[in-house]
Amino acid sequence: MNSNTPLLTDLYQLTMAAGYWKCGKAEQEAVFHLFFRRLPFAGGYAVAAGLGDVVAWLQGFRFEASDLEYLATLPGRDGKPLFCQGFLDYLAQMKWQCDVDAIPEGTVVFPHEPLIRVKGPLIQAQLIETALLNIVNFQTLIATKAARVCLAAQGEPVLEFGLRRAQGPDGAVMASRAAFIGGCASTSNVLAGKIHGIPVRGTHAHSWVMSFETELEAFAAYAEAMPNNCVFLVDTYDTLDGVRHAVEIGQRLREQGHEMAGIRLDSGDLAWLSVEARRLLDAAGFPDAFIVASNDLDEHLIESLKHQEAKVNVWGVGTRLVTGGEQAALGGVYKLGAIRNAQGVWEPKIKLSEQAIKVSNPGIQQVRRYMLNGEFRGDAIYDEEAGCPEVVEIQHPVDPQRSKSIPEEASHEDLLKPVFRNGKRVMDLPTLPQIQAHCREQLTHLHPTIKRLLNPHSYTAGVERSLHERKLAMIATAKTHH
Amino acid sequence: MNSNTPLLTDLYQLTMAAGYWKCGKAEQEAVFHLFFRRLPFAGGYAVAAGLGDVVAWLQGFRFEASDLEYLATLPGRDGKPLFCQGFLDYLAQMKWQCDVDAIPEGTVVFPHEPLIRVKGPLIQAQLIETALLNIVNFQTLIATKAARVCLAAQGEPVLEFGLRRAQGPDGAVMASRAAFIGGCASTSNVLAGKIHGIPVRGTHAHSWVMSFETELEAFAAYAEAMPNNCVFLVDTYDTLDGVRHAVEIGQRLREQGHEMAGIRLDSGDLAWLSVEARRLLDAAGFPDAFIVASNDLDEHLIESLKHQEAKVNVWGVGTRLVTGGEQAALGGVYKLGAIRNAQGVWEPKIKLSEQAIKVSNPGIQQVRRYMLNGEFRGDAIYDEEAGCPEVVEIQHPVDPQRSKSIPEEASHEDLLKPVFRNGKRVMDLPTLPQIQAHCREQLTHLHPTIKRLLNPHSYTAGVERSLHERKLAMIATAKTHH
Repeated sequence: MNSNTPLLTDLYQLTMAAGYWKCGKAEQEAVFHLFFRRLPFAGGYAVAAGLGDVVAWLQGFRFEASDLEYLATLPGRDGKPLFCQGFLDYLAQMKWQCDVDAIPEGTVVFPHEPLIRVKGPLIQAQLIETALLNIVNFQTLIATKAARVCLAAQGEPVLEFGLRRAQGPDGAVMASRAAFIGGCASTSNVLAGKIHGIPVRGTHAHSWVMSFETELEAFAAYAEAMPNNCVFLVDTYDTLDGVRHAVEIGQRLREQGHEMAGIRLDSGDLAWLSVEARRLLDAAGFPDAFIVASNDLDEHLIESLKHQEAKVNVWGVGTRLVTGGEQAALGGVYKLGAIRNAQGVWEPKIKLSEQAIKVSNPGIQQVRRYMLNGEFRGDAIYDEEAGCPEVVEIQHPVDPQRSKSIPEEASHEDLLKPVFRNGKRVMDLPTLPQIQAHCREQLTHLHPTIKRLLNPHSYTAGVERSLHERKLAMIATAKTHH
Repeated sequence: MNSNTPLLTDLYQLTMAAGYWKCGKAEQEAVFHLFFRRLPFAGGYAVAAGLGDVVAWLQGFRFEASDLEYLATLPGRDGKPLFCQGFLDYLAQMKWQCDVDAIPEGTVVFPHEPLIRVKGPLIQAQLIETALLNIVNFQTLIATKAARVCLAAQGEPVLEFGLRRAQGPDGAVMASRAAFIGGCASTSNVLAGKIHGIPVRGTHAHSWVMSFETELEAFAAYAEAMPNNCVFLVDTYDTLDGVRHAVEIGQRLREQGHEMAGIRLDSGDLAWLSVEARRLLDAAGFPDAFIVASNDLDEHLIESLKHQEAKVNVWGVGTRLVTGGEQAALGGVYKLGAIRNAQGVWEPKIKLSEQAIKVSNPGIQQVRRYMLNGEFRGDAIYDEEAGCPEVVEIQHPVDPQRSKSIPEEASHEDLLKPVFRNGKRVMDLPTLPQIQAHCREQLTHLHPTIKRLLNPHSYTAGVERSLHERKLAMIATAKTHH
């Protein structure tokens, strides 16, 4: 399947596009912001991811002949064509020409902050909405999950091996990519290795053991075939007998000048079994053989195993990492912030809602992050047209009672960086290891209480005071004039 | 991304393959079964899906030069190559030659039943494991979710529009395919429409309304541009005012010879708003204008809205449908059932576990389904080598206390059908509408209590008595000889 096509979209983007084209608004300039409203996993932060794939998708943004032929076949409710030929011809000649700014991948981000800002012809900025949401929602979800899992593992390597339970082939490959950004050391997914250069790991499954008469025979054959890649899966029959068999073959390997790398536990009580397995390995002269643990792990189980002093060195995490587990989607949205009118003036726009959290922020937004003594102290969403005041007060995005002033001595950085200008890419994309390092560094600037798994402390992120006041005034007006 | 490659696999499949090749077992014949152990969503049934994509993937199963070049770069733990050239040459010339049998898509299925059975050279049957699991786990999960949602909607159309929150581009396209199999009428995903021919639907978003000065102006412009596709989204500002604006434009449309199709509610109390909106539409002379409801819906919310007599005609379901919502993965597995020994005799194989549910069934399995008076009465997993007795007793797969005899007058059908023979496809693949019709028909044969959303009645599905006894004997033996 080739998903690098503008048809990776909801039909309503195309019907709206046809509408904009018909009523002469197609090339009116507009600004949209992509953001989420709630942190995933009831956590204290999220890790932005997906921009690399977004850039690739935008660089391939053009309607091919077969796309237009397909669109021409779609009927309206009266059986007549939904799209007229003039509109399809317009799409055929359309050339990507928006400005895009984005928060680099691996950056920690918070609710309501635009992760991506798109400025350009209304029709183009609208047509790309769905693909951007698809890519960024998913990868941000998984990078965040991976960061949580890796923090729980306290620096020990986490191996992602969720391919078999992931949501489709690129559900898996994108998850491998995002998991690496969030801190995973490697993946089992060979295609992700080939495409993204992520280190790949793997040894053998239960079926290998079952295909021989005995477990010992199976380990011996594996050691013979792959002497430089021996991690024995020991729980096909009886786990501790399995460890003894691994030791026996480990000794044979050593005589031949190779070293058994370790063993893997995939079932049973991992806290107890890892301690017993460690004892057996140490007693037999294999103190460096590591123990890999797997079996429906996530950050909570890893934290619990750590508290129980399980003797695990490498964590294999699959299903709950690549799907998000208890939360399978990040609810990111893409909202209109402003439109430039016929006089060339930007008019801010707002969407009302019964729920305060769903009222969008108006304007052309930027995010300013403040740092003091090596710690992130707060993020202010401000309107780039109005500028950000020297002394900033950050209003909680939903609770009118909460606001916070930033100390004047704090340094600051604007998070949205130029990615495209007039359709041309202007950002040099970092490599995946660079993004991973950026994420690791970012997390060091968050106070530990914000990184806590349960009931984390809430980071100060909200709207700069004057933008907040403008928003309140717009809500009052909009309620009476629509 | 091209996912139609044998590299869509876990690395351990390749290291095992190298091992089988080295120790001369690569072409020994083996049988594997793909099955799940627990019904998703705590439901009473599942709907098999994914086979169409599995067939396409298997038909493209060959290692390309760039795949082999990548594999040649992978290091073992001593820095030397993980794979030797002889093995890579073997992969280069390998030709897909397995027999595959499968339960057709859209069939209702139950725990432990092989959805796919693969018989052929051990190395090939092993190498395809991960991709098959990836495709079948995900699509079976989503087809099952869709069936639940569509049953809750009691025959009213369900529109799938999860693309923006799906897990990657083909996480979305495969979800659209599976959702259609499970009963959805259409999708918002244009690419799924192009690839799979699924009907596509969509009109406009809040941003359309926001880009005009007033809502009325926005509806008027949309009606002018797309008179044959008017479903007005009425909740950008005030929902019932939105309905009044839709009515005003609907009257204008009618004067021009077009008919407003309906309105959409995307927030607020859908039970109350739909009743009020219906009243306004009827009073204004639009009794045929339908009401679409959306906003994080799933089968439980739809059932609740139905109980409250919400006046909804079309259900838009996104995130929770295409990701599975509360359950994001089906835990399907792929287990060795038998290996043919040097004497040409099939030796059944078993994997033990502390948990009874994880002990695999041995043999070359088939599933026989019994029907009486138009109702499915039970499924028996039996060993094809031993055959299925005339009078069948079905043993519960986990609980030794539970078994059930099938009345002799029941008719029966074997569910696994030939798909590949010696690597050649022998099954004519049904079209997607045919699969959807098959699913709809299948569900009519299940007793209503099995289709209940909460605490459903348990369908009789398990192992035929003599196979069960053989399994018990094998467990006893395996515990002493490994």
